[in-house]
Amino acid sequence: MAFHLLQRDRPGAERLAMAMGAALERVHHCERCNNFSEEPVCALCRSPRRNAQLLCVVESPGDLLMMEQAQCFDGHYFVLMGALSPLDGVGPRDIHLERLLARAADGVVREVMLATNFTVEGEATAHYAAELLRAKGVQVTRIARGLPVGGELEHVDSGTLAQAVMERRGV
Amino acid sequence: MAFHLLQRDRPGAERLAMAMGAALERVHHCERCNNFSEEPVCALCRSPRRNAQLLCVVESPGDLLMMEQAQCFDGHYFVLMGALSPLDGVGPRDIHLERLLARAADGVVREVMLATNFTVEGEATAHYAAELLRAKGVQVTRIARGLPVGGELEHVDSGTLAQAVMERRGV
Repeated sequence: MAFHLLQRDRPGAERLAMAMGAALERVHHCERCNNFSEEPVCALCRSPRRNAQLLCVVESPGDLLMMEQAQCFDGHYFVLMGALSPLDGVGPRDIHLERLLARAADGVVREVMLATNFTVEGEATAHYAAELLRAKGVQVTRIARGLPVGGELEHVDSGTLAQAVMERRGV
Repeated sequence: MAFHLLQRDRPGAERLAMAMGAALERVHHCERCNNFSEEPVCALCRSPRRNAQLLCVVESPGDLLMMEQAQCFDGHYFVLMGALSPLDGVGPRDIHLERLLARAADGVVREVMLATNFTVEGEATAHYAAELLRAKGVQVTRIARGLPVGGELEHVDSGTLAQAVMERRGV
């Protein structure tokens, strides 16, 4: 991309440079949800139409977008901007857990839903965050793990099947 | 395969023909679980090491094998040998639901776990079977549906994510 811009589209390169410079200057983290925002508190956190009693914890801004696209959640978010990964040197401080605790203890939030990925890092993060949150007396839930849409027993892996059986629920 | 056997391996073809003939003669359905078996009651149904209070309902013998490979279930099974599919002309009678009801009402079974696929047919079958079983006073559960192992929010479909949020549970 760099070679193309330098050789064939120098005005485009200048526009890109200015846009990136402006973004670096203007885009910061929202004080409440930690997502990227141009204002101190982002539009989603300010919206009166969201359910303030529900707080969903996701790993990245991309995950928040996926949740919004799925239209399955109308509460507020907290974006960790990462997941616990000791091997990569990412500890509890790097994912702003103390800010999450303060956010969840605002007196309005009734339930914190942990929507981290179903990966080793995501599970570790969910376990660790759940312990801290429970110690503060907050109700904690975890999104379900099991068969995905279209999932056939014959074609899912043993781990998913075992999880689906373990987390079965009354109907 | 037919051309290969006829041209290059006629003794093999004869062995295959005899084996298939013998299988057709000897293999029937187990009286209890409806799975294929050479005896009236299969080895799994006769085993004293299985938990007789748990009954898992699966669509096919292949699904039963997957459950056994995942080593996540130690109860008994019932194999429907299909799933409800009105478009294909498969109704409640074709999947032996009346036999399942009789099997579940043996006085020992405490919980019937519906492990049909997370497909349209599997879901319809689970709903229908659950209604009939509940009417008989049997406790019914459904395996969990949500994020599969390794599932990242950014890469799962909206349906799976919505299901995972809807079926979230306290931790």
